[in-house]
Amino acid sequence: MEINGVEIEDTFAEAFPIKISRVLITAATKRWAEIAALEATGFGTSVIMCPAEAGIEKFVGPDETPDGRPGVYIQICTFGYESLEHQLLERLGQCVLTAPTTAVFNGMPEAEKQFNVGFKLKFFGDGMESETEVDGRKMFSIPIMEGDFLVEENIGAVAGIAGGNFFIFGDSQMTALTAAEVAVEAIKDLDGTITPFPGGIVASGSKAGFNNYKFMKATANEKFCPSIRDKVEGTEIPEGVKAVYELVINGVDEDAIQKAMKAGIEAAIAVPGVSKITAGNYGGKLGKYQFHLKDLC
Amino acid sequence: MEINGVEIEDTFAEAFPIKISRVLITAATKRWAEIAALEATGFGTSVIMCPAEAGIEKFVGPDETPDGRPGVYIQICTFGYESLEHQLLERLGQCVLTAPTTAVFNGMPEAEKQFNVGFKLKFFGDGMESETEVDGRKMFSIPIMEGDFLVEENIGAVAGIAGGNFFIFGDSQMTALTAAEVAVEAIKDLDGTITPFPGGIVASGSKAGFNNYKFMKATANEKFCPSIRDKVEGTEIPEGVKAVYELVINGVDEDAIQKAMKAGIEAAIAVPGVSKITAGNYGGKLGKYQFHLKDLC
Amino acid sequence: MEINGVEIEDTFAEAFPIKISRVLITAATKRWAEIAALEATGFGTSVIMCPAEAGIEKFVGPDETPDGRPGVYIQICTFGYESLEHQLLERLGQCVLTAPTTAVFNGMPEAEKQFNVGFKLKFFGDGMESETEVDGRKMFSIPIMEGDFLVEENIGAVAGIAGGNFFIFGDSQMTALTAAEVAVEAIKDLDGTITPFPGGIVASGSKAGFNNYKFMKATANEKFCPSIRDKVEGTEIPEGVKAVYELVINGVDEDAIQKAMKAGIEAAIAVPGVSKITAGNYGGKLGKYQFHLKDLC
Amino acid sequence: MEINGVEIEDTFAEAFPIKISRVLITAATKRWAEIAALEATGFGTSVIMCPAEAGIEKFVGPDETPDGRPGVYIQICTFGYESLEHQLLERLGQCVLTAPTTAVFNGMPEAEKQFNVGFKLKFFGDGMESETEVDGRKMFSIPIMEGDFLVEENIGAVAGIAGGNFFIFGDSQMTALTAAEVAVEAIKDLDGTITPFPGGIVASGSKAGFNNYKFMKATANEKFCPSIRDKVEGTEIPEGVKAVYELVINGVDEDAIQKAMKAGIEAAIAVPGVSKITAGNYGGKLGKYQFHLKDLC
Repeated sequence: MEINGVEIEDTFAEAFPIKISRVLITAATKRWAEIAALEATGFGTSVIMCPAEAGIEKFVGPDETPDGRPGVYIQICTFGYESLEHQLLERLGQCVLTAPTTAVFNGMPEAEKQFNVGFKLKFFGDGMESETEVDGRKMFSIPIMEGDFLVEENIGAVAGIAGGNFFIFGDSQMTALTAAEVAVEAIKDLDGTITPFPGGIVASGSKAGFNNYKFMKATANEKFCPSIRDKVEGTEIPEGVKAVYELVINGVDEDAIQKAMKAGIEAAIAVPGVSKITAGNYGGKLGKYQFHLKDLC
Repeated sequence: MEINGVEIEDTFAEAFPIKISRVLITAATKRWAEIAALEATGFGTSVIMCPAEAGIEKFVGPDETPDGRPGVYIQICTFGYESLEHQLLERLGQCVLTAPTTAVFNGMPEAEKQFNVGFKLKFFGDGMESETEVDGRKMFSIPIMEGDFLVEENIGAVAGIAGGNFFIFGDSQMTALTAAEVAVEAIKDLDGTITPFPGGIVASGSKAGFNNYKFMKATANEKFCPSIRDKVEGTEIPEGVKAVYELVINGVDEDAIQKAMKAGIEAAIAVPGVSKITAGNYGGKLGKYQFHLKDLC
Repeated sequence: MEINGVEIEDTFAEAFPIKISRVLITAATKRWAEIAALEATGFGTSVIMCPAEAGIEKFVGPDETPDGRPGVYIQICTFGYESLEHQLLERLGQCVLTAPTTAVFNGMPEAEKQFNVGFKLKFFGDGMESETEVDGRKMFSIPIMEGDFLVEENIGAVAGIAGGNFFIFGDSQMTALTAAEVAVEAIKDLDGTITPFPGGIVASGSKAGFNNYKFMKATANEKFCPSIRDKVEGTEIPEGVKAVYELVINGVDEDAIQKAMKAGIEAAIAVPGVSKITAGNYGGKLGKYQFHLKDLC
Repeated sequence: MEINGVEIEDTFAEAFPIKISRVLITAATKRWAEIAALEATGFGTSVIMCPAEAGIEKFVGPDETPDGRPGVYIQICTFGYESLEHQLLERLGQCVLTAPTTAVFNGMPEAEKQFNVGFKLKFFGDGMESETEVDGRKMFSIPIMEGDFLVEENIGAVAGIAGGNFFIFGDSQMTALTAAEVAVEAIKDLDGTITPFPGGIVASGSKAGFNNYKFMKATANEKFCPSIRDKVEGTEIPEGVKAVYELVINGVDEDAIQKAMKAGIEAAIAVPGVSKITAGNYGGKLGKYQFHLKDLC
């Protein structure tokens, strides 16, 4: 398939189950909400060696939040619910409770699974905390040095999906990078997904396992590495391609991932010099979910 | 002591030994260097519940880096060298190797203690990596999807200091917050220090231990909480003070901490409505280092 | 009237007719669109001494623009259509045609009044330009150093409204400023309005005419100046108010101004320490439009 | 000449005399200083159709300003001193006096030529203004709605230089643009120069005069337009070059321009895919100043 002269390979992204919590952080301004969100979702690109995968889902205006202030939805993802609760406690307790002007609301009040993270964080108040209500939600108010920190009693979680993805091929590194950036921006306008890597972008996509170093769980995906194109049998790099970036997308359900992949790909191919879009999979052997590019565009 | 009508309390910040590594990240632009640095230093406010304390030290121009590109120095801190090496491997491997256009250089080439982090990260190359040199430094070049990732063989570390601090009292939350922000900015112009909390600022300074909840290691520092001023015996909140922010400063040595505290305090007291500066200590019983405010200003 | 303990004075904003053009700038990324928009709308706060009033209306995603790229709507306003056409030619020709990666589309294709700005700008192509079409719109393609600049043939204009406004009273300068900032952010999510002053905010609201200096057309509105509260008979500054900021809002019609004022006020009063909202008028003697605060909230 | 495999053409930038004023804007935070500076220097790319050329020179920390607050130096340039004074009055009066938290200081106190801009702006105070001193400088304090606006009595100006420049050739639009961006960043670290175009970059460099349209003073520099390379006799576009960006540099003297060109070129050629640097001139017939590339690098 070809769109605007860009080849869309007939392949699919292979993705996996993961547990996802969604948290709404509000603050005095959008900028302070973002600062808290960046700290809380940092060191959160891949569960290979990070304690969680995490990222900003989207920003919301004051008319869309329980306390009438600007807000940002973040997602935190781990393989199991137990580790997820730990990550919520640590990341919200250390990176949002400590951040200027923030409050924390349940981003998934409808979910069956609920962690009483707010209940646990209230003990920081050392007996001076109290219960209150904001827009019908049960909150704890904890006196702190800047004033009072408000946190909702529960934070919900669902079984979601990790590893939605696509690859962008460009005629220069900066072409492919700009396309990746604009794809991340487009996805940030949507509900339900995050792109957990730095700036939403993967510069060094990996393959599971190794060719040479037996002690490695994941190594460079050499078939997609332009600088060694001439040395790799079966290289996937067409002539003239100088760089490849991958977007990895986690989301609450298949529909969210699909919409994000579609929006991201459409934005990416508007950048002149992008020549091809493909996606990463394991031949369907490992992942439970398949997102076929031809179904999206 | 009083400066510009602002009371500087005659007290001291009490600080502790910590191990610190310093890493120079370069990238195609300052913006991409910052994005990698934010991811790599996120979830890094306090070792109470974060795997490390981490932050941006300062930005440098292309004329100050080995590869002639814009750069940013970050610091990563833990109590011991073993955990520090783990954090370096995880944070650089997951958050910088994966970030667009970055390279990694040793930020402490003179330090006695050196971790061969670059040597270990090169195995991601799965046999396709090679050795090279940039500006006299021994580097590994790892083929990745965007091109080649360059990382220096070693990353140095020193015994540094955590917990330098000061408190800003303001006549409104936004007064105190603006003063804290401008103090963080001033410190970011200096060498050798980081302010690891979100945006460099602590909204919820804590005391060691508890009054009521025996299972808590750290709880709200109620004597500095304005909203419960009337309920707390021995409150430290003067009349008219509506908010207090703390800056926590880690640094490579006493001189760096002192300069950062001085620059931060001087910037903070230029904001109208700031009425008092003080600092946090344990009466000198716990920490090895004391930074007296009267010696700074 | 009182909302959340904030007094909303029973008064009105008095506003005036102005001519408004609306331009859609697209670019490779949102950031480059913003850079062009800031240059094109700069030196554009008030027609008292600026050649136009201008500002960013809102950002749009790639799915909302004719060329599938991120975009930003700007407005340019002057009292007459002739000066408006001049401003369009100068600002688009000097600040958008010259800006990296931009294209220009008609932001008011339905308006009766149309200026053939694109037709006139094409002469920069010096004979090498050509006609083309994007999403059904008639465009000119001008070869330039970065590639090709695309501009739509016509840019529309309407008779709109200038000078919608409200004032925010705060217990500190930073309180009032943060409230003003968050109000500007909320308005930027809406259609049809701009806040042309720096960062969307007026720090020095004026009265028409003078008390002392006969040669001045506009001077400080001393009744709303907190620092001289004790010297001004009939001061409007309540005790405890330390700062006042004004938002000035231009928009395409009354409905747009009303929605912006409402969204801005609601966002502002969520900031603790804001005590009062009022608005500026001339007793109804000068302006054609009146926006009563009690009708908004 | 070749540096890092990039051709540096043996040619020169031809530049012209211009009058330059330099203003120091301070504010509560760096961000508010920047917002004021962007508004005050907007619509200021080229005197061909803008009322001035203007831009941000550099940011300074609180330890480098008379009032101990963060600051930014801007330059405003016109051909004559009379128009320069008008621009100062209009841009400072409309875009800085109105901007949150700002103060204005003389950025050239040593210059022989001084405009009493602060003296003239004080009349906005309508009789309530007063004289004061900051760090030995004579200031006026004008009561305004946010508090008091401080402005120094005089603003200095010198005979400077406009039109320092160089061109960056890249293998893709995004390559050349990233190189231009990083060059602008490098120049912003230096004293005495501005890059007045949007984001510091010219996407549509022009030639004086016309080939086809007699009524045009400046038209596209077709020999440097890649998209019409095959149609232009004597094209300067080498095979494989897809985009060219120009940086235009104004500065207070020859030394400042030279240092800026050198820093910008060195930063630009660190971006992979940049193949050539050249500069724009009129064969030495029009401009008083010549900056030879071979003398810089």
